[in-house]
Amino acid sequence: MADQAHEPVMDGLMQPRPLTIAHILERAERLYAHKPVAVAGTERVTYADVARHTRRLATVLDRLHVPVGARVATFASNNRRHLELYLAVPVTKRVLHTINIRLASEHLEYIVNHAEDDVVFVDRGLLPRIWPSADRMPRVRHWVVLPDDSDTPIPADPRILHYDELLAGAEPFAGSFEDTFTLADEQLASGLCYTSGTTGRPKGVLYSHRSTVLHCLGALAAGFIGLGESDVVMPIVPFFHANAWGLPYGAMMAGASLVLPGPSAKPAHLLRLMESERVTVAGAVPTVWTSMADELSAYDLSATRFLLGGGSAVPPALSETYRTAVGIPITHSWGMTEVSPVGTIGGTRTQHRAATEDEQVAVRAAQGQPLPLVNVRVVDVGTGRELPRDGHTVGELQVSGPWVASGYFQVGEDDSFTDDGWLRTGDLATIDSDGYLRLVDRIKDLIKSGGEWISSVELEAAIASHPDVVEVAVIARPDPRWTERPVAYVVLRDGSAGTAEDLLRHIRPMVAKWWLPDDIVFMTALPKTGTGKLSKSSLRESLHIS
Amino acid sequence: MADQAHEPVMDGLMQPRPLTIAHILERAERLYAHKPVAVAGTERVTYADVARHTRRLATVLDRLHVPVGARVATFASNNRRHLELYLAVPVTKRVLHTINIRLASEHLEYIVNHAEDDVVFVDRGLLPRIWPSADRMPRVRHWVVLPDDSDTPIPADPRILHYDELLAGAEPFAGSFEDTFTLADEQLASGLCYTSGTTGRPKGVLYSHRSTVLHCLGALAAGFIGLGESDVVMPIVPFFHANAWGLPYGAMMAGASLVLPGPSAKPAHLLRLMESERVTVAGAVPTVWTSMADELSAYDLSATRFLLGGGSAVPPALSETYRTAVGIPITHSWGMTEVSPVGTIGGTRTQHRAATEDEQVAVRAAQGQPLPLVNVRVVDVGTGRELPRDGHTVGELQVSGPWVASGYFQVGEDDSFTDDGWLRTGDLATIDSDGYLRLVDRIKDLIKSGGEWISSVELEAAIASHPDVVEVAVIARPDPRWTERPVAYVVLRDGSAGTAEDLLRHIRPMVAKWWLPDDIVFMTALPKTGTGKLSKSSLRESLHIS
Repeated sequence: MADQAHEPVMDGLMQPRPLTIAHILERAERLYAHKPVAVAGTERVTYADVARHTRRLATVLDRLHVPVGARVATFASNNRRHLELYLAVPVTKRVLHTINIRLASEHLEYIVNHAEDDVVFVDRGLLPRIWPSADRMPRVRHWVVLPDDSDTPIPADPRILHYDELLAGAEPFAGSFEDTFTLADEQLASGLCYTSGTTGRPKGVLYSHRSTVLHCLGALAAGFIGLGESDVVMPIVPFFHANAWGLPYGAMMAGASLVLPGPSAKPAHLLRLMESERVTVAGAVPTVWTSMADELSAYDLSATRFLLGGGSAVPPALSETYRTAVGIPITHSWGMTEVSPVGTIGGTRTQHRAATEDEQVAVRAAQGQPLPLVNVRVVDVGTGRELPRDGHTVGELQVSGPWVASGYFQVGEDDSFTDDGWLRTGDLATIDSDGYLRLVDRIKDLIKSGGEWISSVELEAAIASHPDVVEVAVIARPDPRWTERPVAYVVLRDGSAGTAEDLLRHIRPMVAKWWLPDDIVFMTALPKTGTGKLSKSSLRESLHIS
Repeated sequence: MADQAHEPVMDGLMQPRPLTIAHILERAERLYAHKPVAVAGTERVTYADVARHTRRLATVLDRLHVPVGARVATFASNNRRHLELYLAVPVTKRVLHTINIRLASEHLEYIVNHAEDDVVFVDRGLLPRIWPSADRMPRVRHWVVLPDDSDTPIPADPRILHYDELLAGAEPFAGSFEDTFTLADEQLASGLCYTSGTTGRPKGVLYSHRSTVLHCLGALAAGFIGLGESDVVMPIVPFFHANAWGLPYGAMMAGASLVLPGPSAKPAHLLRLMESERVTVAGAVPTVWTSMADELSAYDLSATRFLLGGGSAVPPALSETYRTAVGIPITHSWGMTEVSPVGTIGGTRTQHRAATEDEQVAVRAAQGQPLPLVNVRVVDVGTGRELPRDGHTVGELQVSGPWVASGYFQVGEDDSFTDDGWLRTGDLATIDSDGYLRLVDRIKDLIKSGGEWISSVELEAAIASHPDVVEVAVIARPDPRWTERPVAYVVLRDGSAGTAEDLLRHIRPMVAKWWLPDDIVFMTALPKTGTGKLSKSSLRESLHIS
């Protein structure tokens, strides 16, 4: 070899522009000022209006002397003022802490105190759920009330301020928020969201501007959610539920219209909005899709192009109901609060074009492929060794990527993370040779029977495919002989005369004989977590199974 | 105000995962190994094959003792081995220098020496264009010949090596390239591309892994190019022309199939490939689209969903020809080598849905909106003050964003950049209130007549709308009375009997009377730059106008 002089490694010569939420805001101002934000069927503004309010809100936060880096909490429905908080808080380098409005007061107080929230913005109608805890949240200096349609009494208390009054009295910030960020600032915390804490204390996930913008670009990628300017996007999933899956920021970056449902989650209200606003993309948890399923035929949802389901497994039968009635199946997404939250998007790909109808249903029941920049792997729970991507070897799902958590807020070492910095998800999954992810179960929801594993998810899907079944949860009951045995809790359609024997007959061809539940218990409703997911832990507690 | 204790600003707690081309490669291995790469109608491989070769090529670069950070040049057509170089060079932290194969030897030697290329990979059929310069490129240690269909003689010279032989003798790298990058490494240089240098010395733009990946995500964004898994992407634009507009990396990240045309740019060859491979997205410069326009009716292009045109203005008449024949207009993109290259994408948006057919044609003639993360502004050429976004105030277009150059390789201060770090483009443009960009002209191509400006671009578009006109260029001729006057150089369709008077009669209703060219000169072909753009500088030189 001739000349081998050492060459220094060198950086590219590209502009050091940071990835920031400020860009999302100011891009919407420059390009999409005219696009509408429709709220609850009662309010219609544009991104220009939202941006104008946001610029006043930025001044308000300064006037309230909210320090840079401080947590600003929201306790609110999906409404216009909440969207303004989504913007004004992070673009002024504070941290948006979205609180789940369905939390029990004990969790609520823990979270607000742990986050050290400086100010809480709360929907007027939601005051009764949080104000009684105010005295046990001593770090909160101000409570700012967001007006809504309610006439809930507002306590006379010096800590209470009024959103619209504050904004009316503030000058809008006239400069460029984008220009206040350096490249290093893209790492700044922008948002905070606590996990639902079905096990142990809730833990806070601290997003950065960089992670948020990259997640947003993932939401725009064609073939995944593919948010575009021609979309009309309706986040039914609450703003406090893992950033509403990135839909609010994603819609603004794409220039899509936004439809916000407001406080009501009534099926008729949601469907009416989808019809009247010609919604193209909507996202909700399976229990909400289930609640809407019976009324689909009364509405014209022909504008729809994408229905997103996540938070828990979407039963294939539910997805098929939508495919039949609306023409569009529910596309599965796998995500977690720790994953910003979207990790994978399901649906068929070109390799499934020749598949039979049944095979396509099976593909759609899987969680799909990771978004660009996200990596997934399955590992042996015992050894941590990576397992083959063969579509059948089950292991713990682990995930890495620039929008995946590396730790929890104000928590030291945590065994949720591997030595090489991947997140342990607690989900059991297979990955096939095309990188297709299929969740099998939560590790803790798997049922160990006679030394073999029974998947509660597969058993639930089989039971849910019975036409009379509205909801189902399968959990493990301790068993002296088999270690554990499955028990199914089922909600039947009103007026159904279905029996346990009917259900067993229905699922017998679908599962191994030893998977058949030992008991089927009929209930009028299943317990839910604050985000509307089935709460197996509540079920276990109420049945004295821990 | 109560407690105002200082809060430290804090970073988010997200995984420090870098944005790297290694992710693009390994994502394709994990998710899209089965997807095809079709080359020139003669070769068909998969991404798995490409990745396997890439892993051997990585070892080859080590064995050749190519230092990390060294420039590895390519002098090649759009072919499979060139794609492997696109991957292996940057994922091993070398810098891919793509050389324009149409450069004159003087420019070629300047560029290779300025880049200090360590190795040059060259298509066998292109050896005659560069080997004669080898002795004047003393830093190049190795010349590696890429086999092609040609039987061009290969000189007997110890510097010459053979691509396939090198790969056959190398073990594939078995590890994860992605894992070799730290967060800081995303800033590493990954590619180098010289501007065409129509004025002054060619200058090198040094891309980073970060800029390349972000540009890729921009290419995936729905509503822009929107590359997705179901696409079949054909970069007709050469790999050496500003990264083939991001299409190769973009297609791989999206999991789209790739179709590479190989060395031939014959219209029939390109159209046959588009038909047989069911191409959905193709990108080419307007002169290439023009060359194909006459033969469209002989091919089934029904799979097409997006035709991308850039590099110079796409005449509306040309776009309409495609819209009539293929059903898809040519979508305008504005970009530059310094912008990676894509800055904006044209086409209609929701606000144009109610527009008349003619109005939509006018919208499609504009350059459109900037991609996410890109900012554009127009400034007064004299004062540098930003001008209003009113759709009619003309100023110099400036651009910023994470995939826009901040300087040139081995060049000191350069007046191409403003004090606040934006790139001066040399283009004159308007921006409207929806952020819609419309190029008026290159600053140097504007014609100053009687104290007023005449846009050569608009005049060219008017002339090009005549059915007999194949190509047109308008340049300024010095004029003692008016300072400058327009002269049009026109190529007519074979067999046309069109006269200057016909053309003047055709454009008279479209432009102001004083815009009418003083002369119309008929030619059999117009001079082109190395990238196939009309070369007005050559035209000026050949006509002794400087």
